Amino acid sequence: TSESSSQGKPGTDGKQSGHDAVVVTSEDGITKIMLNRPAKKNSVTTQMYHEIMLALEAAGKDDSAMTVLTGNGDYYCSGNDLNNFTDIPPGGIEEKAKNSAILLRKFVDCFIDFPKPLIAVVNGPAVGISVTILGLFDIVYATDRATFHTPFTHLGISPEGCSSYIFPKIMGPAKAAEMLIFGKKLTAREACAQGLVTEVFPDSTFQKEVWTRLKAYSKLPQNAVRISKQLIRNTEKEKLHAVNAEECLVLQSRWQSDECVNAVSNFLSRKPKL
Amino acid sequence: TSESSSQGKPGTDGKQSGHDAVVVTSEDGITKIMLNRPAKKNSVTTQMYHEIMLALEAAGKDDSAMTVLTGNGDYYCSGNDLNNFTDIPPGGIEEKAKNSAILLRKFVDCFIDFPKPLIAVVNGPAVGISVTILGLFDIVYATDRATFHTPFTHLGISPEGCSSYIFPKIMGPAKAAEMLIFGKKLTAREACAQGLVTEVFPDSTFQKEVWTRLKAYSKLPQNAVRISKQLIRNTEKEKLHAVNAEECLVLQSRWQSDECVNAVSNFLSRKPKL
Amino acid sequence: TSESSSQGKPGTDGKQSGHDAVVVTSEDGITKIMLNRPAKKNSVTTQMYHEIMLALEAAGKDDSAMTVLTGNGDYYCSGNDLNNFTDIPPGGIEEKAKNSAILLRKFVDCFIDFPKPLIAVVNGPAVGISVTILGLFDIVYATDRATFHTPFTHLGISPEGCSSYIFPKIMGPAKAAEMLIFGKKLTAREACAQGLVTEVFPDSTFQKEVWTRLKAYSKLPQNAVRISKQLIRNTEKEKLHAVNAEECLVLQSRWQSDECVNAVSNFLSRKPKL
Repeated sequence: TSESSSQGKPGTDGKQSGHDAVVVTSEDGITKIMLNRPAKKNSVTTQMYHEIMLALEAAGKDDSAMTVLTGNGDYYCSGNDLNNFTDIPPGGIEEKAKNSAILLRKFVDCFIDFPKPLIAVVNGPAVGISVTILGLFDIVYATDRATFHTPFTHLGISPEGCSSYIFPKIMGPAKAAEMLIFGKKLTAREACAQGLVTEVFPDSTFQKEVWTRLKAYSKLPQNAVRISKQLIRNTEKEKLHAVNAEECLVLQSRWQSDECVNAVSNFLSRKPKL
Repeated sequence: TSESSSQGKPGTDGKQSGHDAVVVTSEDGITKIMLNRPAKKNSVTTQMYHEIMLALEAAGKDDSAMTVLTGNGDYYCSGNDLNNFTDIPPGGIEEKAKNSAILLRKFVDCFIDFPKPLIAVVNGPAVGISVTILGLFDIVYATDRATFHTPFTHLGISPEGCSSYIFPKIMGPAKAAEMLIFGKKLTAREACAQGLVTEVFPDSTFQKEVWTRLKAYSKLPQNAVRISKQLIRNTEKEKLHAVNAEECLVLQSRWQSDECVNAVSNFLSRKPKL
Repeated sequence: TSESSSQGKPGTDGKQSGHDAVVVTSEDGITKIMLNRPAKKNSVTTQMYHEIMLALEAAGKDDSAMTVLTGNGDYYCSGNDLNNFTDIPPGGIEEKAKNSAILLRKFVDCFIDFPKPLIAVVNGPAVGISVTILGLFDIVYATDRATFHTPFTHLGISPEGCSSYIFPKIMGPAKAAEMLIFGKKLTAREACAQGLVTEVFPDSTFQKEVWTRLKAYSKLPQNAVRISKQLIRNTEKEKLHAVNAEECLVLQSRWQSDECVNAVSNFLSRKPKL
């Protein structure tokens, strides 16, 4: 049930499709979903949102004990690819915003409902949607090179991934607001002190330490692990779906606002190659 | 729309009413509400509760991006002025307690419902109500001279400002209870580690660093900022109003208790000049 | 109303029943419930669950200001005595699991509903149920020798004591899951940084410092203290009872699972003397 794995060897794609932007491997009871677009800092295209959802759906049903999300190269993930905004359908920006909200809502729902332990192996800087969904992960390991950045209002937009609800719960409203409203970038140590990250490791030993620990965890009695995760998450599930729906509704409106249109346009004209 | 400001120059009142106990100024997109009763450590009189509410109502509607609460002089705020207890109406202590509960509930409701980012610039020690409402602020910056103290049970009373609900959420029940039930005083560093404070600054550079950062934040797209704040706070609003109502009901009863009457009477006879 | 106390003198039982596994004393306005089975690391037998519930019921009604739970000897509590699993009734393992779930639910309910401040004086390592109920305590003081360990999935079982709900609230889901799902053991310092513990003391001065502080707290106005505690806890009470019921239901099923039966059987055959 498993392709050859590139675990512990980021940059090497082995025999599975080397040009795929999302690479899925399974080994030692762990299914790994790796963002594989290092030249673009693993920013997420519309196509990749769909691929990640398919990968999660399959991982939830396979015989692995847990699922890992990680990135290939220096970045974990630089967030939503802003070029997603340039592909305007015949219905114009209104239809674009509606479709994007539907896609985002489905994407986040996959994380809310994921039935097994979900682990983020944050191998470098994390931005936007890759940060906001971290509250839906059961373990978040980070290299000390990682940073956590959600510059939403700079782009005229607003938080997603249930972060508007979970981040204040984790770190208190006073720290969550500076991050989510004012775009304060956190270091890995700060994110760990505030409870967003489980543990920080030196970059030089990050991959080795993390995978050793995960392999040990994957050997625990699987039903007990899965049932314990569900017990912890089920009390919040209904609430999280409602939060996700509300966040996407607000974003749908934000994406059509002058503030957002102008900010994205400025960003894309400044940085044509991102 | 703005009076001349005393920002960054605490102790200087500029041309606006120098004897006002609450001074409101607006500059650089920031409306500042300053407690200005330094000789009384900025303790809050009944009159000042009303003035702060009026200032918040106006600030919510003006064209500023955010609103700051701070204190003039060495203290941020020493809490409710206990002399408020000595002004007994014809209806006696029962009517007094009822009126005080109505006032407090309205006061806290103004913070729960405030539509823009609300920033506390904690320039020195904070006591009582000035501490408990901090959970309703979006950013809390503190000088390293600040302390956070809620000696309610010493006075025979109980927590307000939604702290009975928000503090356990922020810092966990085991730290919240020692503070709210047993009156443990926190240093600025402790309050920051526990999530009540966003960041602590050295006293010597506090005003400069804080206002520089706030001025930068005030330039972000305003609608995105306001909508993000509301998104974060709206999920809790109904719950917070219910908590506020319950806290005020309990306090109304506490204010009429022997424990409170005796404690306040002892306090006022010991410290006639506060 | 008080037996002679062994406070501050662990290991000395004074005149109260020296062979009791649960010793209750009352002094200085503080009722102390001490686990007294040091040779078994204060693991909790079925009989002790009943004795602790009786002690809590009495302590809730006596004239003390607060109630302390602590352990005698090197351990605070090593959790559920796994020999409890060997006493199978005529109805077999199904009846055993049902009875155990009923007992556990009643036990945890006593902590949820306790009307006065509840203090844990964690004098050494804590395991399992003695850890998970800590979220229901108002203050948790720990010696720096203490550790906090919940190896549930290793035994094929799942979290109880409302920890599946309270721990993620206190420390964030990413730290709670590593502890509750994967059995990560926390040091006292880690547990304190994550909000599970109020304060950590050096072992050499632990008893002295803790009891001095508690005696001071016990002199505060008692009604204000009790009412403040209830104000803080009442908003959560209904939710906590629901969580407790769900956790016990899941455990009832887990106890009958192959994963659990095999793990407990292996454990007991490896360590026949625990």
